[in-house]
Amino acid sequence: DDEEPFFIYVVDEKDRLRGLVPLRKLITVPPNTAISAIMNRDVVSVTVDEDQEEVVNVIRRHDLPAVPVLDLDGRLVGRITHDDVADVIFEEADEDMLRMAGTDAAELERASSVRAARVRMTWLLPCLIGTAGTALVMALFRAPVGSANFGILILFAPMIMAMGGNSGIQASTIIIRGLATQEMAGQSVLLALRREAPIAVLVGLACGVVAGILAFAVVSLHGALGLQEMLNEPPADLHPTAVGVAVSLAMLLAILMAVGLGTFLPFGFRKVGIDPAIASGPLITTSNDVISVSIYLSIGLLTMSSLG
Amino acid sequence: DDEEPFFIYVVDEKDRLRGLVPLRKLITVPPNTAISAIMNRDVVSVTVDEDQEEVVNVIRRHDLPAVPVLDLDGRLVGRITHDDVADVIFEEADEDMLRMAGTDAAELERASSVRAARVRMTWLLPCLIGTAGTALVMALFRAPVGSANFGILILFAPMIMAMGGNSGIQASTIIIRGLATQEMAGQSVLLALRREAPIAVLVGLACGVVAGILAFAVVSLHGALGLQEMLNEPPADLHPTAVGVAVSLAMLLAILMAVGLGTFLPFGFRKVGIDPAIASGPLITTSNDVISVSIYLSIGLLTMSSLG
Repeated sequence: DDEEPFFIYVVDEKDRLRGLVPLRKLITVPPNTAISAIMNRDVVSVTVDEDQEEVVNVIRRHDLPAVPVLDLDGRLVGRITHDDVADVIFEEADEDMLRMAGTDAAELERASSVRAARVRMTWLLPCLIGTAGTALVMALFRAPVGSANFGILILFAPMIMAMGGNSGIQASTIIIRGLATQEMAGQSVLLALRREAPIAVLVGLACGVVAGILAFAVVSLHGALGLQEMLNEPPADLHPTAVGVAVSLAMLLAILMAVGLGTFLPFGFRKVGIDPAIASGPLITTSNDVISVSIYLSIGLLTMSSLG
Repeated sequence: DDEEPFFIYVVDEKDRLRGLVPLRKLITVPPNTAISAIMNRDVVSVTVDEDQEEVVNVIRRHDLPAVPVLDLDGRLVGRITHDDVADVIFEEADEDMLRMAGTDAAELERASSVRAARVRMTWLLPCLIGTAGTALVMALFRAPVGSANFGILILFAPMIMAMGGNSGIQASTIIIRGLATQEMAGQSVLLALRREAPIAVLVGLACGVVAGILAFAVVSLHGALGLQEMLNEPPADLHPTAVGVAVSLAMLLAILMAVGLGTFLPFGFRKVGIDPAIASGPLITTSNDVISVSIYLSIGLLTMSSLG
């Protein structure tokens, strides 16, 4: 055995674990002491069918250098040591991170580019179809909004989608890590929502105000540069201020929705047995995009009809 | 001392570490053996000024349950044990993941919503300004492209930006984890680019073809629904096929660029002493957006002028 032993495990005649003696204790008691007198009978152990993540949690909770592994009849069949724990922690973190990026470790185990591309495409393809949904929503709003107004409003759709996506990923990553590190394991989704709600309101208001100002500035600049006049179209009905207000309001709503989903979905996925890390992945951010662009263009349409 | 000792550290009269005796050895040699005869003089140790990530790598490389810590004069001042290692691995993975999501662990240590919102805003605000850049680029293309064509072309800008962003994050996450787990630590950026290049070409071609078909379908549907006729504008010059081709080509280029940057930037950041995890963060994806929307609208403009 190359590895250092930390404990002497004591088994009965049927190999069932009965106790444990730390090496340190063995050294410090008189030589003729009976093992049964110094052994610790209250041994933390795991069974062969335990999930690796749970084994890591057991070892970490008790700060153990090693944990004995028992079969289902209580017989000692092996031990898991601290260095296995480090490997598992690395592996689980890898798994989560790659999943959040929309790929998985399977692609690294395969040398072939075609196989790696195939793993990535399984995530990218549903997203691509989702973004076609965004395009379709935008196309459907074009006629009711009118060409000139659409051309102005649409400039800020990527802004709203991107910021909704970013703030949603911030929230979901906080939750996903909390669930993975057991910090939030016993916490209810309501408690998490109560933490996230005021943050979302603050972030939404701040981004909403800044986005409104930036939109006002871009539309004003677009007008000042004479870009509108170069186009063969009736001028847009929307004043820069109206665009700014619509962008502000849509930004606030998109952020509230994204943070809400980013908080709720990891708990929801865990409940139905799906890895919560999916919630920060490209599939969810794509769904976010479709909803937030619909909210934005609806607000644009409402602003126009309230003006006209 | 609550913790289990694994080794006896042997020091000289000046407290300088001279050797180490595993407890196991101490038990198995005759009682009157001299420590100097059984001690291992070749001790793996770390110094007080070592970075915690490097200490973890030392412990993992040697599969040690503990490593002695020396001051700069070689005096034994403490030890770091396996359970500290697990904590550090968790912490570093947390740090990377939160940074990739555009926030950091600082927000969790603070109970106040205002402070958490402030941490998130430090990432969101530069992104917001970046997305105003996207809006400005789009606004500048509007007049030369023409209102009707712009209204059609722009429907697919979010698709190209999102897919460029997603494929860039896939590549950068693979690299960031490779660098963090030391798998790629000694690898050059050229080797990584050589791995990623064929994957990017395959993914770019696949997404390009599918995106072209989807764009053709959306523009055709837009025409078939009579949405164009509802607008007071001259019909768009761009046939659905031309839009499809422009979207395909722009998608390929956006993915090649995003994967290239996603591969190169983590190495570049590491070189100048910045955490590579930044490369998957919102700041880089926002820059990606501005570049890919510029590429796309330029291709749209070229397609139009080559048609007319």
